[in-house]
Amino acid sequence: MGLVYTMPHEVSYYECDMSGQMTPSMLVAVAIKASEQQSEQLGRGTAYIHELGLNWIITEYEIQVKCLPSVGEKLTIKTEAISYNRFFCYRNFWILNEQGEELVSIQAIFALMNQETRKISRVQDVIIEPYESEAIKSIRRTANFLPVESFETTSLNILYYDIDENHHVNNAVYFTWMFAPLGLEFLSTHELLDSHIRFEKEVVYGDQPIVSFEKMNEGETVITKHEILVAGNVCSRGQMLWRKKEIK
Amino acid sequence: MGLVYTMPHEVSYYECDMSGQMTPSMLVAVAIKASEQQSEQLGRGTAYIHELGLNWIITEYEIQVKCLPSVGEKLTIKTEAISYNRFFCYRNFWILNEQGEELVSIQAIFALMNQETRKISRVQDVIIEPYESEAIKSIRRTANFLPVESFETTSLNILYYDIDENHHVNNAVYFTWMFAPLGLEFLSTHELLDSHIRFEKEVVYGDQPIVSFEKMNEGETVITKHEILVAGNVCSRGQMLWRKKEIK
Repeated sequence: MGLVYTMPHEVSYYECDMSGQMTPSMLVAVAIKASEQQSEQLGRGTAYIHELGLNWIITEYEIQVKCLPSVGEKLTIKTEAISYNRFFCYRNFWILNEQGEELVSIQAIFALMNQETRKISRVQDVIIEPYESEAIKSIRRTANFLPVESFETTSLNILYYDIDENHHVNNAVYFTWMFAPLGLEFLSTHELLDSHIRFEKEVVYGDQPIVSFEKMNEGETVITKHEILVAGNVCSRGQMLWRKKEIK
Repeated sequence: MGLVYTMPHEVSYYECDMSGQMTPSMLVAVAIKASEQQSEQLGRGTAYIHELGLNWIITEYEIQVKCLPSVGEKLTIKTEAISYNRFFCYRNFWILNEQGEELVSIQAIFALMNQETRKISRVQDVIIEPYESEAIKSIRRTANFLPVESFETTSLNILYYDIDENHHVNNAVYFTWMFAPLGLEFLSTHELLDSHIRFEKEVVYGDQPIVSFEKMNEGETVITKHEILVAGNVCSRGQMLWRKKEIK
């Protein structure tokens, strides 16, 4: 088990949707900030990684939501680099409210990308040692994505501010993209319970991405399946579980 | 002159563009947070305004940039509700770095919108008194916008998360929209010196906005003119002044 890092965070109005709940994009952005702070603290910050010709990228998120944080809430973000194998690093996040109750948990998979070849690079001991993560041999299996069968598609605009220092679309943007075709009526009446996103190919400025999605009712809940495609290739897959919001 | 409110703010990576500089959208979002905190402190927060059937809206921003804040910078946001007349409230913001140097100044015009009619409502003394702003008779004249003559247009997608609690596109989104057609090559090689945006009509979910823009070289600087249109009507006008970035 790795070192645990803790960061306080107060939710600002601009991190929230029209109902005052934190958006999934901001949730992961704030979580990643905690992991970046831990890396800085351990002498493995962005400058160190860049000097090795590498960048951290995210390849997968699994998120369980008990309750999305609200504007003004004082949160604690806890994170721990759990384990790693030759190519992947497994890091968990827990988002707690002021009473110490867990609101959200996130399991993320990180990898190191070579800046020049843009391919995944082996995890070097010198990078990973300070986190005290467990070295493992196996590659973790996550749930498979159901294929998007009967879909509608919407084209997306890549904006300058969607691009991050890795010169590709930032991982947090994909939530907004995947949710786009669900529309205001659905999004304002449903709450997200569970989210699983895999990033398979980078999307870069100048690409013309589209999002395809499919909605399936499952009793009390709704499953939505999402794919981001560029020129017919799947770049990212998502699957979300929703429940109708209780009217207050 | 009004009461001055001061808020600290540390710049997060997700508030920045790919070069690590704070985006104009986040700059105004953080500034507005300071004014909201002042309103809460003075007993004139969102709940109070909503009970009167009103919402604060922004009708205009004028922004002068000496230097955009960078990731990790510890800022001080100062704000003061300077003056008001029957319909408009004038509020200034100053964004200072850790050394107390002014990086950005913002002059904003606020108005109160009736939640039902969505028309501008008179400024009531009971709302404005605690800010100790100066009552003035005149309506401040701001610079006129040059017409966008020889333009290119790009269509925009309204995303669920662009909509704020006022049920219209949040003012901060317009910066991203206006800058969209400038493209990565221009935006990554130019720095914003000056920005003037006027909000004339709300844009709501389901609208199909387009942005038209024109670029004019003026010696060492570039002027860009922007209009956001819905069904042929101008909803917002912007004019920006840019300078080529020095290569470091």
